[in-house]
Amino acid sequence: MNIDMIRAAAERAQGRVRQTPLLRAPLLDARAGRRVWIKPECLQITGSFKFRGAWSALSALSDDARRKGVIAFSSGNHAQGVAHAAALHGAPATIVMPSDAPALKINNTKAYGATVVLYDRKTESREEIGHALAQEGGLTLIRPYDEPQVIAGQGTCGLEIAAEARSKDICAADVLVCCGGGGLSAGIALACAADAPGLRVRPVEPEGFDDMSRSLAAGTTVRNERQSGSICDAILTPEPGEITFPIIQSHCGPGMVVSDENALAAMRAAFETLKLVAEPGGAVALAAALFHTDKIEGEDVIVVISGGNVDPSVFCRALKET
Amino acid sequence: MNIDMIRAAAERAQGRVRQTPLLRAPLLDARAGRRVWIKPECLQITGSFKFRGAWSALSALSDDARRKGVIAFSSGNHAQGVAHAAALHGAPATIVMPSDAPALKINNTKAYGATVVLYDRKTESREEIGHALAQEGGLTLIRPYDEPQVIAGQGTCGLEIAAEARSKDICAADVLVCCGGGGLSAGIALACAADAPGLRVRPVEPEGFDDMSRSLAAGTTVRNERQSGSICDAILTPEPGEITFPIIQSHCGPGMVVSDENALAAMRAAFETLKLVAEPGGAVALAAALFHTDKIEGEDVIVVISGGNVDPSVFCRALKET
Repeated sequence: MNIDMIRAAAERAQGRVRQTPLLRAPLLDARAGRRVWIKPECLQITGSFKFRGAWSALSALSDDARRKGVIAFSSGNHAQGVAHAAALHGAPATIVMPSDAPALKINNTKAYGATVVLYDRKTESREEIGHALAQEGGLTLIRPYDEPQVIAGQGTCGLEIAAEARSKDICAADVLVCCGGGGLSAGIALACAADAPGLRVRPVEPEGFDDMSRSLAAGTTVRNERQSGSICDAILTPEPGEITFPIIQSHCGPGMVVSDENALAAMRAAFETLKLVAEPGGAVALAAALFHTDKIEGEDVIVVISGGNVDPSVFCRALKET
Repeated sequence: MNIDMIRAAAERAQGRVRQTPLLRAPLLDARAGRRVWIKPECLQITGSFKFRGAWSALSALSDDARRKGVIAFSSGNHAQGVAHAAALHGAPATIVMPSDAPALKINNTKAYGATVVLYDRKTESREEIGHALAQEGGLTLIRPYDEPQVIAGQGTCGLEIAAEARSKDICAADVLVCCGGGGLSAGIALACAADAPGLRVRPVEPEGFDDMSRSLAAGTTVRNERQSGSICDAILTPEPGEITFPIIQSHCGPGMVVSDENALAAMRAAFETLKLVAEPGGAVALAAALFHTDKIEGEDVIVVISGGNVDPSVFCRALKET
C-alpha cells in the first residue's frame, strides 16, 4: 500500500470519478470560529466517497474476474458504490446487506443493478453468507476498507485535498475525516503525507464506536463493545482494519469523538449554510469542527462530508431536533 | 446590456464568486429519461445565484457610492447576496424585506451584516419605503433583476455553462432556468448566444406566476393576477422586467410551467439523487425536466438549481409529500 497505488487509481478514475470541489460558507466559518473548507463527498457519484474505492477496485480487476462478477458486504454506501462501478464495468454484482439498512440505500443499490441479499444482523453472519455465495459463483470479494485497491481509490480524495490546499496556500491544517474501518482516513493520510505533509488527518467517530480513536491512544487495535445503537449507520465498524490501522497510526493525529446529537446538528448546519445533504455518519467530521473547536489547531480546518445517503425521516429529525 | 459586460463581470468575480460544478446523477437520468446536467447555484456563496449579480453590481460602483451604501428590496435571496457582497466591499447595506419572507432568509440577511427593514406586503409599498430610505442616506438602489450590472453578474453563470457544455461536447440542448423577473434567464441567454449558440434557454415558472411564459407567447409583457399563493417564494414577480424581457424574447425558447407539487417532488429528487438542498423556487427547472419530459428536445438537458435557502419545515414537507 503506497502513494504510487493512489496515483495509479487516480489515473484510472480520470473522467469517471467526480473531482469534488472544496466549498466554504461564511456563516459556517462564523459558527466554527475558523475557516472551514468542506470536501463534499456527498456530491460524489452514488452519494458517497465509496464510489472512489469501488471504481478503483473494479478497474484493477482482470477481465476474467470482472466477467464472473463481484460481491460486497455493506450497510449501504459501499454497496451503492460497488453496484454502480460494477454496472459501468459490465460486471455482475451481488451485495449482502443487513435487513435494517436504510431503505434508501437498499433501494438505490438495487436501482444500480445489483442483486441484493439481505441478512439479519443479529442472527446471521454476513461473512458466512458472503463466502458461500462467492465460492459458488467464483465472485471476487470487494472488501469495504481492508483492501489495498479500495484504500488507493479513497486516497484519490486526498490527492484532491492536497492539491486544493496548496492552491489556496493552506500549508498546515487538521483534516477531519469521518471514520468507520479507516479506508478513507488511511487513503487521505497517505496522499497528504506525500503531497501536503503539513496537513494532519484526524479520524472522527461517533460515541460508543470510537474504536479507531481508542486504538490510536492505546497503540494497538481495540474493539467496540456494541455493534449497533448509533444513528451513524455508515461508520459502525467493530474494530480498525488490519491494513488501515498501521497506516493511520503512522500518519494521523489523535482521533475525535462526537455524539449522535452533534452529528444531527452538523447535518442541520450543512443544510442551512452549505445546502448539502449529509447523512449522520457523513456529518461527524463537521460535527467535530463545530462542537470541538478547542481540540483543533490553526485558522483553517478541512472537513470531509463523506456521504449523503440518508432516509427522509432521519434527515427531518436532524432539521427539527437541533 | 451586452456580452462584454458579462465578460467584465466575470473578471471582477474571479476568485470571489464560486465557479459551481456541473453535476450528474445516474438515478436522476433514469427518472428524466435523458442526461440531466445540473448547475447547482444552491452551492453558490449565500446559497443562490443572486450573489453573482450582487457582486457584479457592488464591484462596479464608485468608491464614493460604496461608502454611502446600498439598498435593496428582496424576499430573500437577492437580500442575502447584496448583504454579503456589500459587507465584503465594506459598504453598508439596507435591505427592505416582506415580513412574511422565510425566517431563514431574514435571519441570514442580518447575519451577513445588513440592516433589515421589514414591511407588510399587503398594506405597504416597498418602493415607497425604499425610495425614502435611499434618498435620506444617499444609498444606491441595487435592483434584483432590471439592472444591467446585475444581469451581467448572473450571466457569468451562463459563461460557465457554455464552457462546460463545450468541454463535454454538448452542442445542442435546452437549458432550463428558474425564472422570476428574468435576470438569470437573460444573463445566461446572452452568454450562451455568444459562447454556445446551440444551447437554448427556457424560463421555467410556477403555475399562476407564469408571466414570462405568457409574455413570450403574447409577444408583449403581461402581468400575473396574483401576487402570492405559491410555495416558490423566490420567483413570484408581478411581470417581466423592462430590460430582461426583450433579451429573453430575442434569445430564449418557449417558457415552461410547473405546479407547486412538481416543485416539491423535484426538491425530493435533488435530495435523493444529488444530495443537494433546493428551495421550491430553485427547483422548478428540475421539476420541468422530470415532469414535462415530452416538452424538452434532445438527449441532454441542462438544469439550473437556482437556490437552496429554504426553511426546514418546507423542506420536510417536500420530503414527506411526494
